[in-house]
Amino acid sequence: MTVLESRAASDSLIPRRSDKFSFGLWTIGWQGNDPFGVATRPALDVTEAVERLADLGAYGVTLHDDDLFAFGSSDSERRRMIDRLSSALNATGLVVPMVTTNLFTQPAFKDGGFTSNDRAVRRFALRKVLRNIDLAAELGAHTFVMWGGREGSEYDSAKDVRAALERYREAVDLLCEYVIDQGIGIRFAIEPKPNEPRGDILLPTVGHALAFIETLAHPDMVGVNPETGHEQMAGLNFMHGISQALYSDKLFHIDLNGQRGIKFDQDLVFGHGDLANAFALVDLLEHGAPGGGPAYDGPRHFDYKPSRTEDADGVWASAAANMRMYLLLRQRAAAFRADPEVLAAMAAAKVDELRRPTLDAGESYADLIADPTAYEQFDTDAYFGGKGCGFVALQQLALEHLMGAR
Amino acid sequence: MTVLESRAASDSLIPRRSDKFSFGLWTIGWQGNDPFGVATRPALDVTEAVERLADLGAYGVTLHDDDLFAFGSSDSERRRMIDRLSSALNATGLVVPMVTTNLFTQPAFKDGGFTSNDRAVRRFALRKVLRNIDLAAELGAHTFVMWGGREGSEYDSAKDVRAALERYREAVDLLCEYVIDQGIGIRFAIEPKPNEPRGDILLPTVGHALAFIETLAHPDMVGVNPETGHEQMAGLNFMHGISQALYSDKLFHIDLNGQRGIKFDQDLVFGHGDLANAFALVDLLEHGAPGGGPAYDGPRHFDYKPSRTEDADGVWASAAANMRMYLLLRQRAAAFRADPEVLAAMAAAKVDELRRPTLDAGESYADLIADPTAYEQFDTDAYFGGKGCGFVALQQLALEHLMGAR
Amino acid sequence: MTVLESRAASDSLIPRRSDKFSFGLWTIGWQGNDPFGVATRPALDVTEAVERLADLGAYGVTLHDDDLFAFGSSDSERRRMIDRLSSALNATGLVVPMVTTNLFTQPAFKDGGFTSNDRAVRRFALRKVLRNIDLAAELGAHTFVMWGGREGSEYDSAKDVRAALERYREAVDLLCEYVIDQGIGIRFAIEPKPNEPRGDILLPTVGHALAFIETLAHPDMVGVNPETGHEQMAGLNFMHGISQALYSDKLFHIDLNGQRGIKFDQDLVFGHGDLANAFALVDLLEHGAPGGGPAYDGPRHFDYKPSRTEDADGVWASAAANMRMYLLLRQRAAAFRADPEVLAAMAAAKVDELRRPTLDAGESYADLIADPTAYEQFDTDAYFGGKGCGFVALQQLALEHLMGAR
Amino acid sequence: MTVLESRAASDSLIPRRSDKFSFGLWTIGWQGNDPFGVATRPALDVTEAVERLADLGAYGVTLHDDDLFAFGSSDSERRRMIDRLSSALNATGLVVPMVTTNLFTQPAFKDGGFTSNDRAVRRFALRKVLRNIDLAAELGAHTFVMWGGREGSEYDSAKDVRAALERYREAVDLLCEYVIDQGIGIRFAIEPKPNEPRGDILLPTVGHALAFIETLAHPDMVGVNPETGHEQMAGLNFMHGISQALYSDKLFHIDLNGQRGIKFDQDLVFGHGDLANAFALVDLLEHGAPGGGPAYDGPRHFDYKPSRTEDADGVWASAAANMRMYLLLRQRAAAFRADPEVLAAMAAAKVDELRRPTLDAGESYADLIADPTAYEQFDTDAYFGGKGCGFVALQQLALEHLMGAR
Repeated sequence: MTVLESRAASDSLIPRRSDKFSFGLWTIGWQGNDPFGVATRPALDVTEAVERLADLGAYGVTLHDDDLFAFGSSDSERRRMIDRLSSALNATGLVVPMVTTNLFTQPAFKDGGFTSNDRAVRRFALRKVLRNIDLAAELGAHTFVMWGGREGSEYDSAKDVRAALERYREAVDLLCEYVIDQGIGIRFAIEPKPNEPRGDILLPTVGHALAFIETLAHPDMVGVNPETGHEQMAGLNFMHGISQALYSDKLFHIDLNGQRGIKFDQDLVFGHGDLANAFALVDLLEHGAPGGGPAYDGPRHFDYKPSRTEDADGVWASAAANMRMYLLLRQRAAAFRADPEVLAAMAAAKVDELRRPTLDAGESYADLIADPTAYEQFDTDAYFGGKGCGFVALQQLALEHLMGAR
Repeated sequence: MTVLESRAASDSLIPRRSDKFSFGLWTIGWQGNDPFGVATRPALDVTEAVERLADLGAYGVTLHDDDLFAFGSSDSERRRMIDRLSSALNATGLVVPMVTTNLFTQPAFKDGGFTSNDRAVRRFALRKVLRNIDLAAELGAHTFVMWGGREGSEYDSAKDVRAALERYREAVDLLCEYVIDQGIGIRFAIEPKPNEPRGDILLPTVGHALAFIETLAHPDMVGVNPETGHEQMAGLNFMHGISQALYSDKLFHIDLNGQRGIKFDQDLVFGHGDLANAFALVDLLEHGAPGGGPAYDGPRHFDYKPSRTEDADGVWASAAANMRMYLLLRQRAAAFRADPEVLAAMAAAKVDELRRPTLDAGESYADLIADPTAYEQFDTDAYFGGKGCGFVALQQLALEHLMGAR
Repeated sequence: MTVLESRAASDSLIPRRSDKFSFGLWTIGWQGNDPFGVATRPALDVTEAVERLADLGAYGVTLHDDDLFAFGSSDSERRRMIDRLSSALNATGLVVPMVTTNLFTQPAFKDGGFTSNDRAVRRFALRKVLRNIDLAAELGAHTFVMWGGREGSEYDSAKDVRAALERYREAVDLLCEYVIDQGIGIRFAIEPKPNEPRGDILLPTVGHALAFIETLAHPDMVGVNPETGHEQMAGLNFMHGISQALYSDKLFHIDLNGQRGIKFDQDLVFGHGDLANAFALVDLLEHGAPGGGPAYDGPRHFDYKPSRTEDADGVWASAAANMRMYLLLRQRAAAFRADPEVLAAMAAAKVDELRRPTLDAGESYADLIADPTAYEQFDTDAYFGGKGCGFVALQQLALEHLMGAR
Repeated sequence: MTVLESRAASDSLIPRRSDKFSFGLWTIGWQGNDPFGVATRPALDVTEAVERLADLGAYGVTLHDDDLFAFGSSDSERRRMIDRLSSALNATGLVVPMVTTNLFTQPAFKDGGFTSNDRAVRRFALRKVLRNIDLAAELGAHTFVMWGGREGSEYDSAKDVRAALERYREAVDLLCEYVIDQGIGIRFAIEPKPNEPRGDILLPTVGHALAFIETLAHPDMVGVNPETGHEQMAGLNFMHGISQALYSDKLFHIDLNGQRGIKFDQDLVFGHGDLANAFALVDLLEHGAPGGGPAYDGPRHFDYKPSRTEDADGVWASAAANMRMYLLLRQRAAAFRADPEVLAAMAAAKVDELRRPTLDAGESYADLIADPTAYEQFDTDAYFGGKGCGFVALQQLALEHLMGAR
């Protein structure tokens, strides 16, 4: 590597606004309360949060209503906090690409918001969200995330799941109608999660959310906001899930973080969980469009928690670590894609052959049936002891690029 | 319980044709080969299989092509075996409600069938399925299941998942076209599974399959065939998954069996895994239609494996156990639904209130916004220390019915 | 069933002091705070807690120091609360069979107590425990539980696990020495857990704890306190774990609750998780001694959480449900053990043959080698297609007893 | 990096005999049979296996009896195959550091070997192992592994787990006695696994095996042989498990491979599963002795399966990949340990402080109680908003070394 190349490589690791890194206020602001412990850190002021993120190279912040102004705030208190945020945004140039609503912290939402068995709660939840859509519009957000963390059950008899999905649809349809009528340029993104805090959460995976969206009155307005750890809590391959969301043209937003297997929601720094899958994900996002190039151009949003063991220094170190991991992985993925040996291994593994349709242009099933090479003359024996796929060699090359060993 | 009631209860545990119990030939025919062991039982003759199932009270058998005639059979051998099956069906009155194709056992399918990176394999797979659809039609099957057990990957770089989904769609679209053109009265049912034998399988859950179906050319012809253990291998609630399939009107077929948590695919007898969830499932299938009554009227299909420890007696004991477990659970679910104390607990838990729309008939979002009782006057404090959901009491009643303790 | 039998059956479901049911103050006292939500219930007064438990039929309460008097309480406040507890105990006749120490809630314990990297914290933790042992002795507890919920790590490089185990041993050795010197009749019981709140907790399973105990200076004084959900969070069979603890004569205490698979720690009511495994567990505890009879005679301690959805009524309904589930399972297990058909199935499955030593009395390995029936004449072929184990039939009988269907 | 340094770095990635890499004959010889598929590769001749491994830089091969000569072989056939192996060993200089016995493939072992309910099977199993110990001695192996893959159950009532552990102990005690009497220099190593092929396997984790060993007549002769994937199938941290085995001085052998989470046993190439945990493991093995230096000096044994998708080229590429991954990780771990910034971060995180005893030399618990700085003056408030552990920064440094980014 020449000095210039080295500098370029190093420069590529400095977060820039164009990288579109964003953070939830609730992430760096998490105080460390967990099921077995109280807070280990004081509350973080919103102005400091915005300024520090700007200094670190982020381009945006995101928020729940209750992150900015406490649940039950008076209108004036709410306005005061919104103005403080706006001032900080103006001062730093940060944007608010996404807003979401807290329908899970308060006792009223103990059985959910849109799908609580209690109809009065459902009405209250809708009102809370409608109000927050107005705020999202005011802040210029383009995406409105819906994480239904309390929509679910612990006990199978306690929730009519079909009825719950009907109510979920009723809610989203109403919100879409509102956004259309108000002329607000906002799209919705559903965030799936399999469990925690509920025993079983509705729309537990990317797949379930994508399927639900197709039942809506305005499916074009609604996509998904998958979170690394949430899919991995179900043992699913996050890159696969993102691929299906892209296949369905529904990757409206993404939550990046780290998770170490099937257990409670860890919300580690991105890349601090399943590193190899994070590499594949960044490779997909950055170089995975069918013709090459980025497959996703929205915010790279970190929805993580600075470990409870950390103080303020650790909070900011962890925020920086998210971005650095992403940039390192992006750098490695670029080298991976450019390596001639990788290209040869990909060709040997026929990775690109999968893009070629199985039928020839214009070929019908009748033509296929009439083609003896497809069946009668197909040499199945050749696949025993031969026709190796070459997948392990390719995987080894991928890991060596991930490890900077090539 | 009077003598008559007792006899009725006992009678309700005898499998009848009208119960629509069906078994795969590969289930009772499983010889016990597993990743660490060879067969422990000899092959089962198809005629014996059909006769024994008929004796036990089943109404149908299902099959992969390779279950009936070995892969690579000559046309005459294939025909001979089909005729033997047909004879046994005629002799017993059993039907073949479902047929499926084996695209996973042979070396040629080592990287999948419809989504193999190797295009020649994809063409061969399509031909194998087309041929088997003809057989399904001949046997009078109404459902054609597609389990893509080898459609997937172990290594993230080795599979372009979006391209794989494109090929999957190409395949299913072609098959639908074929069925339409031939005038065959068959619907397709995709069977999801998260992993095993591949590290990650495409369409890993009911949700992913439902979402994929919406991208097809003929989504109305394709539904899902969820399997108890497959969903539970991802830690998902099977009853929830079935509920979403019903919500989407896509429960075309169902595979019942038992699984004890997130591990390899156990294929235990139905109810021998998560018993409480099996109770909730049967309750849903039998009494879960929105207005009451069965929510699903298709085959109750058992896709299980008689444990490798068992001999032929154990095989048939296990087959009978599947049906008895279903009938026992059905009996318990009926009593659960009829118990006035349960009805009261359900009302207290507002289970039915979830069926009531959140908005009044004719109410618009503007009306909702104008309703101060929905927000401004909504008493959030009442949910602290009050407004208990009563879910634990209801769960206890459910378990007592399951245990026959009420 | 005669009227008398029916009454006896019903009577056996009423909790009695002799059943030794105990509850942690923190269980019925849990206010519903979880990672995504604030409290939904007010604090529960200790006097009310004791009185209500006594009314329901419990025989004991257990506690962490911080459950009774807030962390940092003055000596007088601490004493006042202890006296209130003692008065309630005297008034009701309830006992305190077990005491434990909170080394996880406060910020000082963010990296653990006995194994914090911070030596000052370790010293503080030891002092907090020593003080609480005095309280345990005062309250007449016989068991002192140690759950090291914060002893662990999220990041592999941050914790020298061997050194941590050295410090763990140093701590337990010191505590044993203290108890010996003070002449306090207390035994220690380590409670394993695989994760949550830490990413990985030390001594993650019953096995790891049993192994650790053997490295102590006073292994005889230390046993285990396994918790249903904790083992099941690692996908392990709880009954198996308890069996190994009994094999090692180390089942000093037990925490009963419910968990639905590998996910966050649910702390459901006992039996509301894996019902079939709960049945096997109760069967083991009550009838599993090698010669028959109870295998464990200590407290049946419920370490559960009343669901966050419940109000005070639900709290007490859930407390009662724990005991009722245990008693129902005990009743079913007794019938299972008494059923002649079960005994026959057990004999067919050779369950009892496993108690017979593999070698004859006095037989040496030389004798075994000289026995041709053991090897040269052993008919391995007989196990193919024959010598079925009969396990499925036995399992079906077990489930039918569990379901009250026999 | 200078040219010389670069060459040294590159050289360090070439496997050498001194690296002690060994492979099971069953690993490179796996033909690809899995629960849903037949073999995709022909059998591998033992001579070729040994020669190819020698060429790749391995130092040893390991085997089950049945890997070398088919179950039921005549004495002469058995001898012929042993001689062929010996010739290949002599020709290549490879050694056989470990031998193990197959007690899982044949129908006779369907309910286990040492713990089968069927006593005749137990006796046969003992004889098979005794015979294989003689072979191990003949081949010069120092370690005899026992993986009890079929020792377990699917159904809770079918196995008396305590009795099973008694029989397990009886078996191991007898084998130890035999080895002592014969003067064979062999130690035993138990290999734990949680499940697959049985629903629940006895001694499911490193912890359970360590605990069991302490109940034996000759605990000093028996250690553990942990396998990466087996611990990770229970969601446990493999490095933690190895650390506890080292703490107990029981790491007699190790099985390295890759696993991607809680699912079926994948047996991927080492490092192709959880890469970050593999890094921590190699760091521990190579640099984790309390005073620095290797913590384990036995074989680095790969117990993996070349993916079923691969042909012979892929088999050998995968064998080479195991060694290369280990060497790359060793190189990265060495750089990690030498980096001054890492040392500073470790000091900040007080990682080394954990090695310092909690009590001063000579300090008693009475002294601790008398030390007001330990409790009365301990500043718990300082841990709120301060006293950050610095774990995230250290983790980031570790990952950057793993990625070759420093």
